[in-house]
Amino acid sequence: MIVVLEPNTSKEELQHIARWIEDKYSVKIHLSRGENLTILGLVGNTSNVDAEQLEANEKIKTVINVAEPFKKANRLFHPDSSEIQVGDRTIGGEKLAIIAGPCSVESEEQIVDVAKSVQKSGAGFLRGGAFKPRTSPYAFQGLKYEGLELLKEAKKITGLPIVTELMSERDLDVFVEDVDVIQIGTRNMQNFELLKELGKIDKPILLKRGMSATVEEFLMSAEYIMAGGNEKVILCERGIRTFETYTRNTLDLSIIPAIKKLSHLPIVIDPSHATGKWWMVESLSKAAIAAGADGLIIEVHNNPEEALCDGQQSLKPTGFDDLMIELKKIAKIVERDI
Amino acid sequence: MIVVLEPNTSKEELQHIARWIEDKYSVKIHLSRGENLTILGLVGNTSNVDAEQLEANEKIKTVINVAEPFKKANRLFHPDSSEIQVGDRTIGGEKLAIIAGPCSVESEEQIVDVAKSVQKSGAGFLRGGAFKPRTSPYAFQGLKYEGLELLKEAKKITGLPIVTELMSERDLDVFVEDVDVIQIGTRNMQNFELLKELGKIDKPILLKRGMSATVEEFLMSAEYIMAGGNEKVILCERGIRTFETYTRNTLDLSIIPAIKKLSHLPIVIDPSHATGKWWMVESLSKAAIAAGADGLIIEVHNNPEEALCDGQQSLKPTGFDDLMIELKKIAKIVERDI
Amino acid sequence: MIVVLEPNTSKEELQHIARWIEDKYSVKIHLSRGENLTILGLVGNTSNVDAEQLEANEKIKTVINVAEPFKKANRLFHPDSSEIQVGDRTIGGEKLAIIAGPCSVESEEQIVDVAKSVQKSGAGFLRGGAFKPRTSPYAFQGLKYEGLELLKEAKKITGLPIVTELMSERDLDVFVEDVDVIQIGTRNMQNFELLKELGKIDKPILLKRGMSATVEEFLMSAEYIMAGGNEKVILCERGIRTFETYTRNTLDLSIIPAIKKLSHLPIVIDPSHATGKWWMVESLSKAAIAAGADGLIIEVHNNPEEALCDGQQSLKPTGFDDLMIELKKIAKIVERDI
Amino acid sequence: MIVVLEPNTSKEELQHIARWIEDKYSVKIHLSRGENLTILGLVGNTSNVDAEQLEANEKIKTVINVAEPFKKANRLFHPDSSEIQVGDRTIGGEKLAIIAGPCSVESEEQIVDVAKSVQKSGAGFLRGGAFKPRTSPYAFQGLKYEGLELLKEAKKITGLPIVTELMSERDLDVFVEDVDVIQIGTRNMQNFELLKELGKIDKPILLKRGMSATVEEFLMSAEYIMAGGNEKVILCERGIRTFETYTRNTLDLSIIPAIKKLSHLPIVIDPSHATGKWWMVESLSKAAIAAGADGLIIEVHNNPEEALCDGQQSLKPTGFDDLMIELKKIAKIVERDI
Repeated sequence: MIVVLEPNTSKEELQHIARWIEDKYSVKIHLSRGENLTILGLVGNTSNVDAEQLEANEKIKTVINVAEPFKKANRLFHPDSSEIQVGDRTIGGEKLAIIAGPCSVESEEQIVDVAKSVQKSGAGFLRGGAFKPRTSPYAFQGLKYEGLELLKEAKKITGLPIVTELMSERDLDVFVEDVDVIQIGTRNMQNFELLKELGKIDKPILLKRGMSATVEEFLMSAEYIMAGGNEKVILCERGIRTFETYTRNTLDLSIIPAIKKLSHLPIVIDPSHATGKWWMVESLSKAAIAAGADGLIIEVHNNPEEALCDGQQSLKPTGFDDLMIELKKIAKIVERDI
Repeated sequence: MIVVLEPNTSKEELQHIARWIEDKYSVKIHLSRGENLTILGLVGNTSNVDAEQLEANEKIKTVINVAEPFKKANRLFHPDSSEIQVGDRTIGGEKLAIIAGPCSVESEEQIVDVAKSVQKSGAGFLRGGAFKPRTSPYAFQGLKYEGLELLKEAKKITGLPIVTELMSERDLDVFVEDVDVIQIGTRNMQNFELLKELGKIDKPILLKRGMSATVEEFLMSAEYIMAGGNEKVILCERGIRTFETYTRNTLDLSIIPAIKKLSHLPIVIDPSHATGKWWMVESLSKAAIAAGADGLIIEVHNNPEEALCDGQQSLKPTGFDDLMIELKKIAKIVERDI
Repeated sequence: MIVVLEPNTSKEELQHIARWIEDKYSVKIHLSRGENLTILGLVGNTSNVDAEQLEANEKIKTVINVAEPFKKANRLFHPDSSEIQVGDRTIGGEKLAIIAGPCSVESEEQIVDVAKSVQKSGAGFLRGGAFKPRTSPYAFQGLKYEGLELLKEAKKITGLPIVTELMSERDLDVFVEDVDVIQIGTRNMQNFELLKELGKIDKPILLKRGMSATVEEFLMSAEYIMAGGNEKVILCERGIRTFETYTRNTLDLSIIPAIKKLSHLPIVIDPSHATGKWWMVESLSKAAIAAGADGLIIEVHNNPEEALCDGQQSLKPTGFDDLMIELKKIAKIVERDI
Repeated sequence: MIVVLEPNTSKEELQHIARWIEDKYSVKIHLSRGENLTILGLVGNTSNVDAEQLEANEKIKTVINVAEPFKKANRLFHPDSSEIQVGDRTIGGEKLAIIAGPCSVESEEQIVDVAKSVQKSGAGFLRGGAFKPRTSPYAFQGLKYEGLELLKEAKKITGLPIVTELMSERDLDVFVEDVDVIQIGTRNMQNFELLKELGKIDKPILLKRGMSATVEEFLMSAEYIMAGGNEKVILCERGIRTFETYTRNTLDLSIIPAIKKLSHLPIVIDPSHATGKWWMVESLSKAAIAAGADGLIIEVHNNPEEALCDGQQSLKPTGFDDLMIELKKIAKIVERDI
């Protein structure tokens, strides 16, 4: 950690600050005095040094943390890539995780039909929303507990593990019982109380990147879950908010090499929510696999025009089937399989 | 609501789509056929027409919602500005709401000292975090229930109503009992399950704008609370996330005239979190009042260098006192008082 | 084009505005009157209707342009993809355009060495900066005219066409004489006077997307060049500015399907400038080709540690050679070749 | 300047890198070796150390520049605020610079009428576009040289100095002759060749912040002009590009205290372009003055509904007059006058 002093700091003030930091945090200080700037390098265990507290000092211009603040999610301390076990499947290994299904569970017929068809095309996991985060209180909010039952029905028939979103701590026990992978949506990525609860359970978590979360903040949210004891975290990029309005969000595929360098956790890509347009999903799914993603989460609906949410970003089963054929070819080039 | 068709839509497809929309949503359609584009104007009650569902149709290029999606928060249906009652005070009326106090409650001495001093300077409300949302799981998370007790102690002595952040539905009953204004932080602005619970209680809510929430999304989150029956919502701008890194966030003061036009709800400004720098607070507090804000929420700490969080953005009591003198003058110019 | 009136507009005002618009712009108006909103649909040739002028009217709430404002760049009026001829090569056809070379031309030895090596690996074009846009006036500004001479030398030896950046109208004649593709940098994407000059020449232009340009603005800058008579425009995505600081910019690959739908112009991707990190280039180059890009522009330097600019984002020749082997495999899957 | 090494750097590599940097840049290195990270502090004259070149080294994780890269614009080396002389007026002193006028010069009657009326209301400078940067090549591009003549006519009658935008180096001589303050628009903030030319003349420059320029980049563009010898730079904030679409741009008023700390140059605010809505101008003008701005640039048109550009953001003369009355009161509170 590096502390930069204001240019007008006197020698006495400098010594006072240096001693104060050394005493308070039990670190050693290396001093570099340049022409205009004086820099203090803090050496030792700086993990509990509070940068914001230091910056409150009027003589401190800025504090720069050069070490990554995440530990358990850091590849530095865990060089091998993590593979997360989900029933008899894994996410993060050679086999790509293809998670497909409708935005919302709407009826038994719908979810079972879609589940069968995506399974036939080669998907390994079934997604489907029972609890739906909607911008408007007047929009369809999901079938809730009934939706979970329908997902279980579809799983019974196809064997596909269930990935679905949890929106409240209140439902955690039900989800631990019924669901294979608990999805945390973009709007809850920094719902810290929920993250703490997820740290206490033994269940894979698909953590979606916050709409305006930096890579570091994203990994810190994974760290919250891992710090509690649950290391089964799967990261998911779903587009970030930028000035561009043509797409719903801007898919940030550079996060794939970034995460592979910084962390050992697997990362999957959601091109459906990122773009909000079904006709962009094919192109970006191929890109994601080529870039080294560990999987995809794709919206598929048997009748998008009648979908109760997000129909405009859903593929039809035939479109998904065509896509999977292409994806298998690209997977092979990057030494993965589907 | 306006539906724009793809240029290659045939006459038969057009008629099919128009009839489908009319039947499904019981609206009337006005057709405008230009050289390259065909536009359907939907007239009638379009509040339950789902734009995303329509966009799933391959022949529909885009759907534009020209009516604001918020109702209870909309000034159109409630022309007079709302004044929210908090004990014997109001927020939204002629008198500006000045909410001051430390980022975190740290000790009885600290919170009582700060409360007394900000009261003396003219603040009308006491802020102080008991439950703290921190990016790192290893950072100080607040004194929690003990913090609430200390806030009540400070209120007993000064009479200042308490404004403090709720982070989990779990603690709602305690907050309803102990707190005067429940603050919802930027990271929970779209924690919809929490918003629904807030709609069921009778207690003022200070709703902070999400870090990357549009004005419309912000008002839709207020709408969530109001739709449940609790119309006591106070909006709070605290800076949005942009590319600029010199300040922690970018304070968007244009939201003040925007909210005044779109909604009847009061809006207060938080210059401390927006900038993350104590020496910017004075300038932006004056700007906010001049622009027509209904109040300010300002961090004040008696010893920022030892603050357990956000010391770098806290004013000292003397600095706050100086600021209040300036603010009173500006308030007078814009026909408000403090 | 759609004009939405303020809710409080009287019938007389409505008629006045409608007649004013009809007279001024010779368009027909379709009126849709809803419960709260009145909408005017403008039918006919609306290309010269000025939305901003209409919005100056106090009774007009907003104006929505549903037709794309670009004509010559629009796929609607030019359904086949454009192939731009550059000497004996084309950009936009089945063969991918791989443009490689150093950020800056530094010496004859350097540019000739790099040119030979990228040619051997399969690149079809040589890039290299002679005039360099640098954030600091104190940084190396390029070898300028001498750099152009060295590029010509490298072309003489390898036969690779030259792609290099023009920074000022002043140098246009020299560039027309010496260069095969004139690159316009991100900071000049809306240097409209320069764009107008480019419209008057007969030379391919590689137009980089502005750091914060929307897809529509990007195409409007292409339209500026094309409106002048030069239709040889190659678009280039090089990352946009977002809140994320881990990468220099955020590469927006969703622009590939967007441009393919909206326009007939070819689009190439620059992963080097987008990320600012050489170790991300491989992953994102593969992604770009898989997503359907028409080519890549990649920085390659024989000695990045001594490069006079942007060394941190340059591949070494061996790294580039390895990458090309992978790219050829992916190109084949998407039915392109290199 | 601080160089952080990759965690796996060996002792030999560390010594090699340290010696290489010391030799290449004639700086001294202070070494801080922590548990996981090794940090090199570069002491001495680091102004010509190229961070990007260092980052090309595979063993260097990141390079952090702790000193501001701007010199002539830096308050550190010029503690007193600069006052820029414009004819018999100054910008940056106690008297606020109020620059008002239409977006475009349209006719003699229009510009003379507006000039007279804003002068009467107390404006000190006349703005008006002769050369107009328009997103569309098909939109009105300004009256050009004829527009300059009309501005001179208005100046002759009112005495108000002229502020107008230069779009091309080509017209520099004419502008030096005819214009009092040369405005450089947001899209040309990093048109470096133009900036260099501006450095060679002796004329005040109003430099608008680029739509997505950081504060540091903004000051570096001022530095380009100053490095050439022209120190008469007036900064202008006109809104930055963010995700918010309700306003045209997001006005960043926190730049006022930021510039006041970092630089000695004056800063004026343009609320008209920032918001794109005339009814927001009053609120944000007051805010800007309260925050400590050195002036305002405001669009005023005698007939906004017929304005050839940007009518929707223009005040009418009576609105401007009312605003000036309010601004005078606020100016007094912050110890400035108009």
